Amino acid sequence: MPDLQIYCDAQLGPVTSKILREGIAPHQLIVPQKQGESVLSVAPSDSAIFQADITLGQPDVESVLKSTRLRWLQVTSAGFTRYDTPEFRAAAKASGLVVTNSSSVYAESCAEHVFAFMLAQARQLPLALKTRCAGGSAPWTELRNTSRHLQGQEVVILGFGTIASRLIEMLAPFRMKITAMRRSPKGDEGVATVTPDNLAAALSTADHVIDILPENADSTHFISTARLVQMKRGAVFYNIGRGATVDQPALVQALKSGHIGAAWLDVTDPEPVPDNHILLSAPNCFLTPHTAGGHQNESETLVRHFLDNFKRFLEGAPLRDRIM
Amino acid sequence: MPDLQIYCDAQLGPVTSKILREGIAPHQLIVPQKQGESVLSVAPSDSAIFQADITLGQPDVESVLKSTRLRWLQVTSAGFTRYDTPEFRAAAKASGLVVTNSSSVYAESCAEHVFAFMLAQARQLPLALKTRCAGGSAPWTELRNTSRHLQGQEVVILGFGTIASRLIEMLAPFRMKITAMRRSPKGDEGVATVTPDNLAAALSTADHVIDILPENADSTHFISTARLVQMKRGAVFYNIGRGATVDQPALVQALKSGHIGAAWLDVTDPEPVPDNHILLSAPNCFLTPHTAGGHQNESETLVRHFLDNFKRFLEGAPLRDRIM
Repeated sequence: MPDLQIYCDAQLGPVTSKILREGIAPHQLIVPQKQGESVLSVAPSDSAIFQADITLGQPDVESVLKSTRLRWLQVTSAGFTRYDTPEFRAAAKASGLVVTNSSSVYAESCAEHVFAFMLAQARQLPLALKTRCAGGSAPWTELRNTSRHLQGQEVVILGFGTIASRLIEMLAPFRMKITAMRRSPKGDEGVATVTPDNLAAALSTADHVIDILPENADSTHFISTARLVQMKRGAVFYNIGRGATVDQPALVQALKSGHIGAAWLDVTDPEPVPDNHILLSAPNCFLTPHTAGGHQNESETLVRHFLDNFKRFLEGAPLRDRIM
Repeated sequence: MPDLQIYCDAQLGPVTSKILREGIAPHQLIVPQKQGESVLSVAPSDSAIFQADITLGQPDVESVLKSTRLRWLQVTSAGFTRYDTPEFRAAAKASGLVVTNSSSVYAESCAEHVFAFMLAQARQLPLALKTRCAGGSAPWTELRNTSRHLQGQEVVILGFGTIASRLIEMLAPFRMKITAMRRSPKGDEGVATVTPDNLAAALSTADHVIDILPENADSTHFISTARLVQMKRGAVFYNIGRGATVDQPALVQALKSGHIGAAWLDVTDPEPVPDNHILLSAPNCFLTPHTAGGHQNESETLVRHFLDNFKRFLEGAPLRDRIM
């Protein structure tokens, strides 16, 4: 295969850049004038992308669509909202553009993060960490009685992909009843599945509802007043998918009425939430600032995941995390 | 077997009392004038105990030793410090007194609690929950980079019993290197074991050190300056055993120097820690008020565990959670 041009708009440190450059040699790395600010935001457009056979990063949609030479785009995030439109999918199909994401890179972190939320809620950590009280006192008895076991409880996972698969592995020792919602169940989920059409019954008995939905036209405000009403009183809601999948005023209302026992959200709409945002004063609402995917040596993991796929690309083997 | 007298000094609600009374019928329940304040503190002594064949609760040592009729004592906690002396053990042996504890009742809660600590630390929840920041900002990058995966890390568990066994099951999907310290390894631990004599090497590479030690003459201040020095720089220390097993000023010093990355303690000495206690101002030191064992319907679980053992007692079968 002749020399390939690989365009990367991700902000990488010197060590990680070196790993990428050496990993693709003798093929060429093209770096734009200005990189993206994070793996969440679109990178500034740069005409250098038009020289590329392969792109790694968060390029703007227009540049990708204009890149007649581009054969493969690997997005540096798990989410890929800006490319997830009928127009983009049709154009990619027509031009033979392969699109992959980096969901494997974030699966471990995201699954551990939401599991941390579940256990922190079960063990009442937010309250327990700020309570000093004597054994036998009223606050002590209350804290102990409101602490829970995850063991034996019911979970509904909205969105089945690499993160859900890993979370299901982690939950195995807790002998929970797990149901995953997937638009088109394939039978390989290892747990019971439902489609959106028959989700209501599963929601009605779940202690935990975990949103791992990507953001697209179908998922916007998927968690609506109607869905919240379907949930069991006291259920706990978690979101590590995308903020826009939730009707936030409806969630706040459900928290205020006590219908939803608590919400743990790593993603919101917008991010970060501004001062005085309704989520900040909602009861039992816990926010982390979109850090679920974060981990030590994150850019190195990203680059190594790309290099693994690059090797597959050169060999003509199927790519990991292919989305189009 | 003729009618047995069962003395119970635990504070039970009407529902749980009824379960106990009906569960032991036609044998008799003796309830003292005043119950214990919690499953952690000694109950007031009451001469009614001298009529008992079996005692469930937290009776004072002197009353137990004077109870010539007593054949079996079930302690309502996992810890049993006040009975764990050479004198008491010798007296129990001489009189044929069987002693059991309730560690099975607390194993799930305690294991979930310390696991919640581990994941909260790995995902930086205390800081993340109070940080609002934009993607790509310095605090965001810092938070993401300091977040960790439990997967693949090393754990040392001090004290091997029902809680450690359950925790090891929970950690299985995380493919960690787990070493358990046990005074007399039996080969049934399912993980590598060390004795206190060869603990130092295991401590030197562990990312997580989990103290589940009971309190007795051997374990007092087991976590000393010398043991802390043996730990890897940045290791995280957890205690769900007993507060007295830790030299607290030494731990605070290690937290201040950064040698220990963080400490998560459900138990302290004393409990609760008073205002201005050194643990309250130590950096990265997180305390919960001895709630690790707490869970919904705790007294009912306690009573059902006793009734299960009571059935075994009547049948002459081996009792669960036997400690003497």
